[in-house]
Amino acid sequence: MTDIVFSESDRLEIGADEYRLRRERVFRLLAEREIDALCVFGPTRVAYLSGFFFSPTERPIALILTANGQVAALLPNLELSHFQQQGPKLDDSAIYPEYPGGGSGRHPLLFLRDLLSRLGVLGKVIAADVDGYEHRWGYRGPALSAVLEQPVQADVALIDDLRMVKSAAEIALMTEACRWGDHAHRLMQDSIRVGSEELLISHGASLQATRDLLAELGGRYVPKAREGLPANAMFIRGANTAHPHGLHESGAVGVGDVLVTGAYGVVGGYESELERTMIVGEPNAEFQRYFAAMLAAQQVGFDALRPGRTCAEVESDVRRFIRDELGMDDLVRHHTGHGFGLEGHEHPFLDLDDHTVIEPGMVFSVEPGLYVPEFAGFRHSDTVVITESGMERLSLYSRELDDLVVAG
Amino acid sequence: MTDIVFSESDRLEIGADEYRLRRERVFRLLAEREIDALCVFGPTRVAYLSGFFFSPTERPIALILTANGQVAALLPNLELSHFQQQGPKLDDSAIYPEYPGGGSGRHPLLFLRDLLSRLGVLGKVIAADVDGYEHRWGYRGPALSAVLEQPVQADVALIDDLRMVKSAAEIALMTEACRWGDHAHRLMQDSIRVGSEELLISHGASLQATRDLLAELGGRYVPKAREGLPANAMFIRGANTAHPHGLHESGAVGVGDVLVTGAYGVVGGYESELERTMIVGEPNAEFQRYFAAMLAAQQVGFDALRPGRTCAEVESDVRRFIRDELGMDDLVRHHTGHGFGLEGHEHPFLDLDDHTVIEPGMVFSVEPGLYVPEFAGFRHSDTVVITESGMERLSLYSRELDDLVVAG
Repeated sequence: MTDIVFSESDRLEIGADEYRLRRERVFRLLAEREIDALCVFGPTRVAYLSGFFFSPTERPIALILTANGQVAALLPNLELSHFQQQGPKLDDSAIYPEYPGGGSGRHPLLFLRDLLSRLGVLGKVIAADVDGYEHRWGYRGPALSAVLEQPVQADVALIDDLRMVKSAAEIALMTEACRWGDHAHRLMQDSIRVGSEELLISHGASLQATRDLLAELGGRYVPKAREGLPANAMFIRGANTAHPHGLHESGAVGVGDVLVTGAYGVVGGYESELERTMIVGEPNAEFQRYFAAMLAAQQVGFDALRPGRTCAEVESDVRRFIRDELGMDDLVRHHTGHGFGLEGHEHPFLDLDDHTVIEPGMVFSVEPGLYVPEFAGFRHSDTVVITESGMERLSLYSRELDDLVVAG
Repeated sequence: MTDIVFSESDRLEIGADEYRLRRERVFRLLAEREIDALCVFGPTRVAYLSGFFFSPTERPIALILTANGQVAALLPNLELSHFQQQGPKLDDSAIYPEYPGGGSGRHPLLFLRDLLSRLGVLGKVIAADVDGYEHRWGYRGPALSAVLEQPVQADVALIDDLRMVKSAAEIALMTEACRWGDHAHRLMQDSIRVGSEELLISHGASLQATRDLLAELGGRYVPKAREGLPANAMFIRGANTAHPHGLHESGAVGVGDVLVTGAYGVVGGYESELERTMIVGEPNAEFQRYFAAMLAAQQVGFDALRPGRTCAEVESDVRRFIRDELGMDDLVRHHTGHGFGLEGHEHPFLDLDDHTVIEPGMVFSVEPGLYVPEFAGFRHSDTVVITESGMERLSLYSRELDDLVVAG
């Protein structure tokens, strides 16, 4: 984890060489599995394999990789220049005027069929991450198999399994993202007062952290999105925290409120995760008991993570601790954590039914939670990377109660 | 459009009665089409029919409506209390411990199968918006038809067609959203200077607009999301605007930069849209020519919209003007606009291949764009609602060049 991947002048993004290596891994997989062509519709998967980041809409986009090493794309005219700016050189492409047809009288997937025909793979073995473009926004369309009138092997795992183990460059970007998530959280914590409005404090801190990031990184920071900030922090408060995914609420922070926070950076398209349970004013005995229980459960999670074990074994350690040592199994509402990277949650999951074997380079959130109805939720989340012998925390924010009390 | 829907003390959200009416419309549709049960997986569609807004993850959620008027849901344990807080009373539900299994050894869709069995609809006619939960984040799972071992009529249109025509309450929420999008844009425009960093100016204005919104609306504003602000503005600049969906870039605003902005409010879950083309410093003749052309094309779009015409006819008017009057058809990269509401783009589209008949209460963006490679993009977008005889602009921001010049 201490290898220097990016020099102090490098742009903080995955380079063209790594994108090419990713595609070469797919070419080999296609050959092994006797697949002639793969259509990739998922926007994050397209970005993972091409470096083309875009704002996904109802306009289908697909990257096509063939077993003989060709790279092609289905693109709306809207995104052509944008792909040319960011993506690899293409062996062929199909540019459609617009969704649903833009005057062509043809659905975009028919342009894809023509492209696959030109590539000589129609009637051969065709796979896809999903069997057709998913129904983002107002999109309506048929399955790819229906358009091609042939079977399509639909399998998100083919690419997503490659995404599970992060490269040195990916880990470096996520480490940097953690640094900015930590910073945004620090600024947020320092500005929370009794009477604070959660939306304003959250976004004020996010904006200041972004200001600091841009001042430090300058042109090394390369946005990969049309919306959002590279450094973010938020929180929910009070009984709303008893919902693991409580939405924002308007109103003011009060004395005695439990806060459950979330903070993340985004660098080169890669995210981090940091969550903390906090208290406004002096913690009472009930709060302290649940906080200590949650903290101990998270430590069990950290200790359980190492290469060679399965995700289910890790979760089993945590759940056994919560059940047998804490006697709090009824307060559990979700598993211990999830992989992530380009997306906020990725396969695999630290879940009793996920038997994926853990490998060095995987990145997980570790966040066992305890939820006390009508009272509060208790959850810390940290970003960790699997090392050769265990794991290393990439989010370095204090986990201790003494450091997480807001003056009441 | 001038009806008073929300009093000055009402919370700005759709009420339980309207959600019930929406479900009753679906019940009638199911009866007409001889469908026994409908499974709704799309998160926005679930919210549209239930009022349950949530943060979509890899954990499948489905709302089930049956022809005999029952309402049921598939929920992860994580969201149970959250649904109870927001959603309607259920006739039955299936709560699964966690994705992928949480120790149950069973995929969540198997819990849905059990629920459909209890509802007595297995083996009968089952429809769904999509045939199984889409592959959000790390989700992996089978088609619903494969789990049920029976055909499933997959059709997003069944619900999305209902969403096309907005109710008085929806239009009132979108009108309010426009007001805050306009306000955020005003604050952003007023703070852009030569040397401004686009991310900082955008989010600074969004934060201030949100502060103003909360101060004015207080508890009437009900957040429907876990992230994001209710008032937002952003822009991209320079040659990047020649990409219709250019991502953010780091760096400073310079004299001569063309800016293409985007601003929106979100009230009760409903969005607005406002985009403007601006210039830093004195506009030269080339800029003025394209700006005037774009403005005229947008006016053609406004004039073309009225009930009874089709989306394609509207687009045809605009494209004919751009081709025959402006001679700029080669600068077009997308159609004139799209429906929207709970999502940023919704069916239908102002496109030559969309023959949907326009009705009062539909809401569209009107945003024909002209894109000059290597130079700049030219696009205004306004939110309009279809009236009995034409259309009415809900975004009221000035469209005139004189009002859109940043001092150089």
